[in-house]
Amino acid sequence: MRYFFLSLVLALCMVNPVHAKSLTTQLPTDLTMEEAQQVLDAALVKAKAQGVPMNIAIVDAGGNLKAFLRMDGAFLGSIDVATKKAKTARLFNMPTATLAKEAQPNKSLYGIEVTNDGLCIFGGGELIIKDNVIIGAIGVSGGSVDEDMNVAKAGAKAIK
Amino acid sequence: MRYFFLSLVLALCMVNPVHAKSLTTQLPTDLTMEEAQQVLDAALVKAKAQGVPMNIAIVDAGGNLKAFLRMDGAFLGSIDVATKKAKTARLFNMPTATLAKEAQPNKSLYGIEVTNDGLCIFGGGELIIKDNVIIGAIGVSGGSVDEDMNVAKAGAKAIK
Amino acid sequence: MRYFFLSLVLALCMVNPVHAKSLTTQLPTDLTMEEAQQVLDAALVKAKAQGVPMNIAIVDAGGNLKAFLRMDGAFLGSIDVATKKAKTARLFNMPTATLAKEAQPNKSLYGIEVTNDGLCIFGGGELIIKDNVIIGAIGVSGGSVDEDMNVAKAGAKAIK
Amino acid sequence: MRYFFLSLVLALCMVNPVHAKSLTTQLPTDLTMEEAQQVLDAALVKAKAQGVPMNIAIVDAGGNLKAFLRMDGAFLGSIDVATKKAKTARLFNMPTATLAKEAQPNKSLYGIEVTNDGLCIFGGGELIIKDNVIIGAIGVSGGSVDEDMNVAKAGAKAIK
Repeated sequence: MRYFFLSLVLALCMVNPVHAKSLTTQLPTDLTMEEAQQVLDAALVKAKAQGVPMNIAIVDAGGNLKAFLRMDGAFLGSIDVATKKAKTARLFNMPTATLAKEAQPNKSLYGIEVTNDGLCIFGGGELIIKDNVIIGAIGVSGGSVDEDMNVAKAGAKAIK
Repeated sequence: MRYFFLSLVLALCMVNPVHAKSLTTQLPTDLTMEEAQQVLDAALVKAKAQGVPMNIAIVDAGGNLKAFLRMDGAFLGSIDVATKKAKTARLFNMPTATLAKEAQPNKSLYGIEVTNDGLCIFGGGELIIKDNVIIGAIGVSGGSVDEDMNVAKAGAKAIK
Repeated sequence: MRYFFLSLVLALCMVNPVHAKSLTTQLPTDLTMEEAQQVLDAALVKAKAQGVPMNIAIVDAGGNLKAFLRMDGAFLGSIDVATKKAKTARLFNMPTATLAKEAQPNKSLYGIEVTNDGLCIFGGGELIIKDNVIIGAIGVSGGSVDEDMNVAKAGAKAIK
Repeated sequence: MRYFFLSLVLALCMVNPVHAKSLTTQLPTDLTMEEAQQVLDAALVKAKAQGVPMNIAIVDAGGNLKAFLRMDGAFLGSIDVATKKAKTARLFNMPTATLAKEAQPNKSLYGIEVTNDGLCIFGGGELIIKDNVIIGAIGVSGGSVDEDMNVAKAGAKAIK
């Protein structure tokens, strides 16, 4: 058990002798941990200023969770809502508030929320954009939709 | 491990001694890979002409995925939407745009989208029909519903 | 409905006036559609040479489906197996055959297959590597594990 | 929409006239955000010292996600593994390495990993204990099981 990782590296070396020493496992321009922490910190500042405890989730360009934080007393149900907001924003490359408009009854995307194992189709999910490239998204949930959006936008603005 | 498939064939021979040599595993008139590729190619031509990147999914008569392609930059969330559109069209033997009308609030099929592990109830899913037989369906997602429908119809028309 | 996409673009412009005209929605070095088609074609050549029909799935660096093809007569159950093999290889940055060894009873990763909504922990998933960066993975299922691995490796080799 | 939260507070006031002004939504001794951040920081220090990128998840006494961080280049598949390790440790009030022993074939808890929407039954999940009370758990995934356990233990030790 102790040497599994080592043997794994050796196995990879044998399979890919050329690449093994320097395989890069994250695309170079994808959201970094440091950037995710900057987004999280900026969102936290705004949430504290508003005085409503929030769940804050951040996904990378692939829609995979990169960082998450739940403030004390924040809704437990918003763990999933915040995560789905971040995922939804990235999956459709738009703020969830924009998607919300077309997902209403009798609108063109009515029913879209049951795809992708469940989306969140109200405001609070915002894109993280760097040098005109979408590198991730932030989702916030815990207060009113407006309060959630304020925090999500404050977080997203930390990256330019 | 090396001989698993061989032993599987032998096992099938023992279970079905008469048929084993020539067991056909796909219905004779079901959508073929070649036909699926024709549908996909025709859809791609239309998508490129429209200039909006799309996810394109094709299912066979059994509603099972036969082919899929995601164009560069297309919505990640549309992988599932396109696949669900194709599946939905075949499961109910109608374009998803037709189903959409009856799935609205206060209409006869309201709520149908949560059955079958999730359907997609807006336009962009079209039937693939050959000699008056439904042999599959195509689902397209990535643009407006009208743009999706344009591409899906262009793909479906490749088979007659 | 007709103008949803246009209004969406306008909405994005209003939200992000600086970025809207040139937002890039796919990371520059991620697997392209053209590359995915090269991988698929190379895998198909090998599968046809072996004479066993296969399901072939390709995911990008984020683990999201990029391309899929099921050959005529290939196992229906392998749609999901092939897709999970591709996903599993990328999620753990190693061929599934390597993961298989440590996922056995009494080995260090026993039980890992129930995580991530189900993984596939036997051979047939291989990484797609370009310039020492993991940009995706291919999963193949339809024959013996060795036959699956032959096809997956042939596909993966199409990118260097 | 703007006044949703306010009206929610008012609604709660009407339902619970006595408590409304000071409703506490989190158990007084439950894991705080500040404590979760201390655990996370201590785990990060150890992970960086080991040189293997990790996914780190922290749950509270209710087993609900409190904090999460994925280091650059860490396995995407370990987002779920780390989260499941933290959840599993708290759900059964023991390190996952302890549970692992009884979850092997022919042992008393064989098969337990498919309960609870999926558990993780190998090392890397550790309890967070304060004044002899279990207040949460940490789950770590990204390296060998031993490396994961080292990081999880370092994180858990930050609280006493």
